[in-house]
Amino acid sequence: MRPSILITNDDGLMAKGLQELIEAMKPLGDLVVVAPDSPRSGMSSAITVNIPTRLHKISEEKGVVRYRCSGTPVDCVKLGLHILFPNKAPDLLVTGINHGTNSSISVVYSGTMGAAIEGCINEVPSIGFSLCNHQPDADFSKVLPSVSSIARNVLEHGLPEGVCLNVNMPDVEPQGVKVCRQTSGRWTEEFVRHVDPHGHPYFWLTGNFSNDEPHAMDTDEWALANNYIAIVPTKIDMTAYDAMDAIKSWQF
Amino acid sequence: MRPSILITNDDGLMAKGLQELIEAMKPLGDLVVVAPDSPRSGMSSAITVNIPTRLHKISEEKGVVRYRCSGTPVDCVKLGLHILFPNKAPDLLVTGINHGTNSSISVVYSGTMGAAIEGCINEVPSIGFSLCNHQPDADFSKVLPSVSSIARNVLEHGLPEGVCLNVNMPDVEPQGVKVCRQTSGRWTEEFVRHVDPHGHPYFWLTGNFSNDEPHAMDTDEWALANNYIAIVPTKIDMTAYDAMDAIKSWQF
Repeated sequence: MRPSILITNDDGLMAKGLQELIEAMKPLGDLVVVAPDSPRSGMSSAITVNIPTRLHKISEEKGVVRYRCSGTPVDCVKLGLHILFPNKAPDLLVTGINHGTNSSISVVYSGTMGAAIEGCINEVPSIGFSLCNHQPDADFSKVLPSVSSIARNVLEHGLPEGVCLNVNMPDVEPQGVKVCRQTSGRWTEEFVRHVDPHGHPYFWLTGNFSNDEPHAMDTDEWALANNYIAIVPTKIDMTAYDAMDAIKSWQF
Repeated sequence: MRPSILITNDDGLMAKGLQELIEAMKPLGDLVVVAPDSPRSGMSSAITVNIPTRLHKISEEKGVVRYRCSGTPVDCVKLGLHILFPNKAPDLLVTGINHGTNSSISVVYSGTMGAAIEGCINEVPSIGFSLCNHQPDADFSKVLPSVSSIARNVLEHGLPEGVCLNVNMPDVEPQGVKVCRQTSGRWTEEFVRHVDPHGHPYFWLTGNFSNDEPHAMDTDEWALANNYIAIVPTKIDMTAYDAMDAIKSWQF
């Protein structure tokens, strides 16, 4: 039986990166696409709790069924698994291909990775794919063979329990694949202040990425800066085991 | 000099849990409160990228300045740090007290913890507090001494780099404090289906928590079930180091 593959993203149903991902996955299995009806960048693992969520089938062709969802990327995964895979989970979840990087600390804010983490929580082997180019017409052609190869590997080998993959890809012909750790860093200088016609200020989120360890060669930022595809195995257990003993010694 | 403490939450500026947290922190330092102008539960680490964000001062009394923010809990932290602490970061960030638990996998979806993680990313010692009672009039009085005690410990000892605290508290007189790991589990049976007057279905998120390891005694769920306060040291490096070697052996 052909593998079943659930696909979502955070740039929305009309994004080029989603269409490219669908084309790359077609040879690998039967596809169910559940994507947000509009862009949901920066939604992290947000869920819709105070309003209901809609799910509509919009097309069905050989091997590809498409749905649009009114919710977040995580809602897409939750609804997809609950409504469309009620008896047997899909064999693979792939998200993206995101227009823009989700390396280093951006994994925390990314809707692409939020959706992959949600698949992982539900014990579905899951991969988030992102390209280091945020333009709507970004060229994905150079990385598509690697997208297929990484997905084939996950279908063949599976992933350890509680682990998904954060895959970031350079905007050039890749030199190869590096399995990396998440770079330590953060976004800085994050806001631009404007004033509205009534004299009230408002703030646009923007910012620059600050890398704490630009010379470390085992990080995802290093891999991308050197034109490699960066794969960070990403875990859902966030416990800081190393920190437990020190805190146990505190007097409460 | 008195410590400076930044406070936010995800239940919004009017939540009782926020007022209780402010009262508990008053003896410890000078407080700056930046809270969402309405409830933002389940917002995880979501950020507002496609619309601007507003920040308004709403009151100033001795030792407590309050602002409302139109964004997510993470926006509150980002704006608070950028606009209100431009030169020197606060000594502590506390979030909550959330009306409802954020134990186990709920750390992923929680806006309370999204805000604490954002503080941690920005190298501010950060704690998210949650009570196992989601009612608007929940009684926080039994846990407030522990909230103060945990905050005092963090002010005194600091926290390791890249680590914040996820503190969940039982809805009874606590038996004490346990430093725990994140329980393995997930939410299941997550949607109720309704039909609107036009015959179209819609879905409400709901669900039950499923604990993979109900007998493990070192988890946050066990601590809470046995009336202890659960502190999970929570890290922002999500790399699954144990999984790297196996994936490096794949043929890409």
